[in-house]
Amino acid sequence: MRRSIATVSLSGTLEEKLRAAAAAGFDGVEVFDNDLVASPMPPREVRGLAESLGLGLDLYQPFRDFEGVDDARLERNLRRAEAKFALMVELGVHTLLVCSNASESAIDDDARAAAQLHRLAETAAPFGVRIAYEALAWGSRVDDYAHSWRVVAEADHPSLGVCLDSFHILSKGDDPAGIRGIPGEKIFFLQLADAPHMAMDVLQWSRHHRCFPGQGGFDLTAFTGHVLAAGYTGPLSLEVFNDVFRASDPRRTAADALRSLSVLEDALSREQDGPGGDGAAPTGARPAVTLTRLPDPVEPAGYAFVEVAAEEDSAERVRAVLAALGFEHTRDHRSKPVQMWRHGATRILLNSADPRLGHTWSGDAAATALGIAVADPDGAAHRAERLLAPPLPRRRDPSESRLHAVAAPDGTSVFFCPAGAVEGDSWLEDFSAPAAQGLRRGSATPLTGIDHVGLFQPFDHFDEASLFYRSVLGLEPAQNLELAAPDGLVRSRALTRPDAALRIALNASVLGRGFQADAAGGAQHIALGCGDVFAVAQAMGEGGVATLRISDNYYADLASRTDLSPAIRERMREHGILYDRAGDGEFFHFYTPMLDGRLFFEVVQRKGGYDGYGAANTPFRMAAQRAERSQ
Amino acid sequence: MRRSIATVSLSGTLEEKLRAAAAAGFDGVEVFDNDLVASPMPPREVRGLAESLGLGLDLYQPFRDFEGVDDARLERNLRRAEAKFALMVELGVHTLLVCSNASESAIDDDARAAAQLHRLAETAAPFGVRIAYEALAWGSRVDDYAHSWRVVAEADHPSLGVCLDSFHILSKGDDPAGIRGIPGEKIFFLQLADAPHMAMDVLQWSRHHRCFPGQGGFDLTAFTGHVLAAGYTGPLSLEVFNDVFRASDPRRTAADALRSLSVLEDALSREQDGPGGDGAAPTGARPAVTLTRLPDPVEPAGYAFVEVAAEEDSAERVRAVLAALGFEHTRDHRSKPVQMWRHGATRILLNSADPRLGHTWSGDAAATALGIAVADPDGAAHRAERLLAPPLPRRRDPSESRLHAVAAPDGTSVFFCPAGAVEGDSWLEDFSAPAAQGLRRGSATPLTGIDHVGLFQPFDHFDEASLFYRSVLGLEPAQNLELAAPDGLVRSRALTRPDAALRIALNASVLGRGFQADAAGGAQHIALGCGDVFAVAQAMGEGGVATLRISDNYYADLASRTDLSPAIRERMREHGILYDRAGDGEFFHFYTPMLDGRLFFEVVQRKGGYDGYGAANTPFRMAAQRAERSQ
Repeated sequence: MRRSIATVSLSGTLEEKLRAAAAAGFDGVEVFDNDLVASPMPPREVRGLAESLGLGLDLYQPFRDFEGVDDARLERNLRRAEAKFALMVELGVHTLLVCSNASESAIDDDARAAAQLHRLAETAAPFGVRIAYEALAWGSRVDDYAHSWRVVAEADHPSLGVCLDSFHILSKGDDPAGIRGIPGEKIFFLQLADAPHMAMDVLQWSRHHRCFPGQGGFDLTAFTGHVLAAGYTGPLSLEVFNDVFRASDPRRTAADALRSLSVLEDALSREQDGPGGDGAAPTGARPAVTLTRLPDPVEPAGYAFVEVAAEEDSAERVRAVLAALGFEHTRDHRSKPVQMWRHGATRILLNSADPRLGHTWSGDAAATALGIAVADPDGAAHRAERLLAPPLPRRRDPSESRLHAVAAPDGTSVFFCPAGAVEGDSWLEDFSAPAAQGLRRGSATPLTGIDHVGLFQPFDHFDEASLFYRSVLGLEPAQNLELAAPDGLVRSRALTRPDAALRIALNASVLGRGFQADAAGGAQHIALGCGDVFAVAQAMGEGGVATLRISDNYYADLASRTDLSPAIRERMREHGILYDRAGDGEFFHFYTPMLDGRLFFEVVQRKGGYDGYGAANTPFRMAAQRAERSQ
Repeated sequence: MRRSIATVSLSGTLEEKLRAAAAAGFDGVEVFDNDLVASPMPPREVRGLAESLGLGLDLYQPFRDFEGVDDARLERNLRRAEAKFALMVELGVHTLLVCSNASESAIDDDARAAAQLHRLAETAAPFGVRIAYEALAWGSRVDDYAHSWRVVAEADHPSLGVCLDSFHILSKGDDPAGIRGIPGEKIFFLQLADAPHMAMDVLQWSRHHRCFPGQGGFDLTAFTGHVLAAGYTGPLSLEVFNDVFRASDPRRTAADALRSLSVLEDALSREQDGPGGDGAAPTGARPAVTLTRLPDPVEPAGYAFVEVAAEEDSAERVRAVLAALGFEHTRDHRSKPVQMWRHGATRILLNSADPRLGHTWSGDAAATALGIAVADPDGAAHRAERLLAPPLPRRRDPSESRLHAVAAPDGTSVFFCPAGAVEGDSWLEDFSAPAAQGLRRGSATPLTGIDHVGLFQPFDHFDEASLFYRSVLGLEPAQNLELAAPDGLVRSRALTRPDAALRIALNASVLGRGFQADAAGGAQHIALGCGDVFAVAQAMGEGGVATLRISDNYYADLASRTDLSPAIRERMREHGILYDRAGDGEFFHFYTPMLDGRLFFEVVQRKGGYDGYGAANTPFRMAAQRAERSQ
C-alpha cells in the first residue's frame, strides 16, 4: 500500500520534512497547513521539490470549524476554503482534511452540517479537490466516526467522504468493527497513530503522546484490518503529534515511522493469509491492496554471545570479574584482539580493538554487540534490513565466518548466529586456543546463562529502540515501569521471547539526567542466571571481586516486610543480595561494582516462575551505585 | 509557622536532601521511607546529622495498605508497623503517615478500618509515635478527607489523627471548607502541594506534576486558611513529586520551595488582617500561629530601563537598531563603558563592561538587567531578599547612586529604581552627556515605551522563574501556552501588572531543544510599544535596518481568514508585520533580525484593548528566524 506521513509528525522546516520523508522511503506526505504557511517556499516550489523527491502530496490538513455554523459564518468559511482550494491547485494536492467543528458555538443539527458540507464539496469540485471529513474525538457535536459517516451519507456528494484516524477512534474506546459498514470508496483517507494507554484529557493525550503503530497500546492491526475490509485502498498515513518527534532529527523519525508501517503491513498480511484466511476480507469481495510482506519473524533461541569492548585497563577489570564468576578464557580471535570467555554454553567476547573505542566514548568497558542465536541467520538479517536496520560491514578477513550484523538505534551491533552452534562450528572457527598468558581458570559456579542484558537508551529514542528490538528480534514488550532513582525517574521496559529464551531490558532517564545517563550511552549491565545466588556471590568474593554493597537499612526493611529468616537475611546482607517476590515466585539478585562508570554485571536466581527483573529494587541498586561512585 | 519539606521533593541522597533543606532555611523534613532504606547512613547517624543541621524530623512516610484487611493480614501489617516504630525511635520521629489502603483487596467496612487503626495507634503509643491517617485521592475505599476523619473519629484514640494533603483534596474538587469542622488537635499533619489544572489520571497527575504553592492552579491560600481555622498548629510541609525536581540541584529546589511557603504565609497573614479580618479565624477562637509577614508587595510603575550587555561588534549592531528605531545616545555612564539610549521616557542601557561578558556566554548581545520603577525601592529590595532573591553587590563607586538589585533565577539582574525619576534625579546622575563620537540621532518614531520583555528560561526552572517574578514584582501570571516551533514545543507564560504597567513574557523549550534554546540562556527580546507600527517599520527601514522577513504564504493565509484590505496586507508583507485579533482588539507587530543569535527587538501596536502577545504568530516568527539563521 501507499505509505504517507504528515509533515506535522516531523521536526524542522517544510523542506527538511519533505527530504526526510523521501529519504526514509515514504511515497507521500500530508501537508500540514502551518508548515506551508511558515515556509519561505512558494507553493509551486514545494510541489516541484516533492516531485523531484518522488513524493506525492496526498492531503492538505487541517481545515477547522467549518460546519454547523450560522449562514453568515458559512459564507466566510467558504471564502476561507476557496483560498485553500486555490493553494491546493498550486500544490497539486487533491484532498482536504476537514475536521469536525470543535468550537463551543457549533450548532447541533446534522441536517445543517450535511447541507454545509455538501456546499463545501460542491465548491471544491471545480478545483479538483475532495473533502475528507474527520470526527475529532473532542469535536463539540460530531465526535465519533459513525456520526461523521451519517453526516457524509446525508450530504451525499461524490467529492465528500470521511477521513478515519485511529487515535480519534481508539482513544474513546469506540468499536472499529463498524468501519466495515462504510463503503470503501467513501473512505477518502486513513490516518494512523498509536498511543500509550493514559487516563488523561484526550486533547492533551493526542497532542503530546501519540506514537507510531506498535509503540503504544492500541491494536492497530485489528483497526486497519477493519478499514481494509471496508474496501479502503488509499494511503496508510501516519499523523503523530509527540513532544519528542517535534524536536528530533526528522530523518531518524521518518525511518522509525516507516519501520512501524512495515511491521503493521506485515502483520496485516500474515493475518490475511493465516489459518482460515484466504487473502480476502471476511466480508467478501474487496479491492485488492498489496501489503508489504517481510521475511518471517525470527525466533531467537538465546544469546550466542555478548561482546564487551574495553581498552586495556578496563578490560583487566572485566577479566577479573569474569574469572571470579567462573568464566574461562578459552579462545582468542584469529586476527583481532578479541578474547572469548566461556562458562558452559555462555560466551562473553572481550574486544580491545573495537573501532568505536576512544571515539564515541572514553574507552570504558561497554556492551557493544549482542550475538543472537537464530535458526536462519540469513533470513533474520534480511528481515532486519527490510526493517531499515543499517547493515554493518561484515568481518572482512576471508578466513573468517561471515556473520550478518545490523546496528540497533542505540548503536549496539546485533549479530545473527546459527542456533545450536557448538565448538568446531561456523563463527566459532574464527577463534583458536588462547595464548597461554591470557588463560585464566575461575572456580566453578552454578551459572546457567545470560538471563538478560540491560541497555540504557537516550530518552528520545526509547520507543524507537523498543520497536526495533521487538520487530527485529521477535520480542514482546512489557509495560513501561517508572522507577525513582536518586537523580530522577528512570523508565524501564522489558522485551522478552514468549518462551523467555531472550530478554532485553531497556532503560532511560525520563529527563535525560542523572549519573546513569552520564556516561556516553548510559549504564549497561549483563545479567547472568544461576541456580544458587549465594554460591555465586561466595565464589565471586573468593575470586577477589566484592559485590555491590547495599544499605543495611534495606535489610532492616526486608525484615519488616518478608518472612525471610534472620540467617538468610544476614547472608543476603553480607553479599548485597536483593529480593523480590511476585505471587509464589521469588527473585534473588546481586550486582558487581560498576566497571568504569558504565558497565556492570548482575547475577540473578529465579524461583517459582518469577518472571520480572526486581524493578522494586532498582532505586536501592542505583543509590548504592551512586554511593560507590562518590567514595 | 514551622516549615517542612518532604525529602521525596528533593533530588539526591538523604544526606544531600537534609543539607539542602537546612541551607534553604527549613525547620524540618518529612523522611521518605525509600530515602532512608536506600541510605548508607544508619538511622542514628541520620538523626545526628539532622540535629547538627538544626532540622527536625517531623514525619516518617508513607506506610501503605494497612487498614481494611483481613485478620491474618492485620497481624502481618502490625509486625511491619512495629519495625517502623522501632526505626522511628532511633530516628527520633514521632509521627507516622499512614495512607488509606489503595489495594483492590481492601475491605469496604469503616468499622473494621477504625478498629484496625485503633490497634495501630495502641501499638504505636508505647513507642511515642502518633499515627496521621491520610485519604489518598486514589484510595480504594477511603479517598476523601471527610471519610478519613469519620474513620479516625470512630477509632477514637489519642494517638490517631488525620493528615491533610492539599493535592488529594483539591485535585478531586472537594470543598476544603469542611476541614473547619475537624478539631485542630486531631489534624496531626498538613502537606501542601499545588498542581497545574490537568484533566488526567489523578495518580499520574500526583506523581509527575505536583508543584510548589503558587506555581499551579489550586487556591492554597484558601485551603490553608481552612486548616488554620480548624486550629491546626503543626508544620506547613511541602510534599511535591515532580519529574524536574527529582532531577535538579536540591539546594535550588529547596530555596524555590521555601519561597513558595513565604508567599503563602504572607498571603494568609494579609487575609487575616485585611478589611473585615481581625486576625482570628471566622469560626472564632483558635490557637495563635505566627505567620511570616513580608514587606508590602511592590507595585511597579513600569520599566525604568532595560540593560543590554554586548561586546563591541554586537554592540554596534544593537546601536544600529536603536538608532533606526529613533533612539538617541543621550548619556554615558561616568565611570563605566555604559551608554544610555533614550526615546522619550524609554531608556536602554548598552553595557560593554558587564563582568559576565565572555564568561557565561560568547559576548553576544543579551538583555542582562531590568530596571523596575517602584515607589519604594528599599522596600522592594527588602521584600525580594526575604523571598530568597540573592542581592547583587551594589555599584561601588561612591559617586554613584546606590540602586538595589537582586538576581532572578535566570541570572537577570533586577534593579529597583525610584518611580518618576527624571533626568537630574538619582541614578540618572551616574550618567553624563555622551562623548561626541557616541552620539547618534535617529528619526522620530511614535514609540510609546517598553511593552514587554521576553526572557527565555531553562525548562527546568520555568515555574521557579514564574513564581520569582510574580512574587518579587507583584505580577499576575497568565495561563501557560504551548506553541509549536519548528524545532519543538515552546511553553510561554506572560506575567503582567493588573494595570499592564509592566509585562514580562517567559518562554522555555519543552524538551530544552531547538535553536531558540541553543544560545546560552536562550533567545530574548525587547518589545517596544507604538502608536503606528507601519510608521516605525518605515522609519527603521530608512534607518538601514530591515525587519524580519515573514513568509509570503503567511499573507496569503491572512487573506483567507481576515478582512484586512489588500493594500494593508501588502504593506504588512513589505514590512514583515504580523497580525492577531481577539474580540474587538487587534495586534500588529514586527521583529528586527536576530542580533548574534540571541537578542532581537519587537515593535508592537495594540488596538481596541488587545491584551495578548500575538502568540498564534510565534511559530511563524520562529520559522522566519530559523530561515534567517540558515542563510
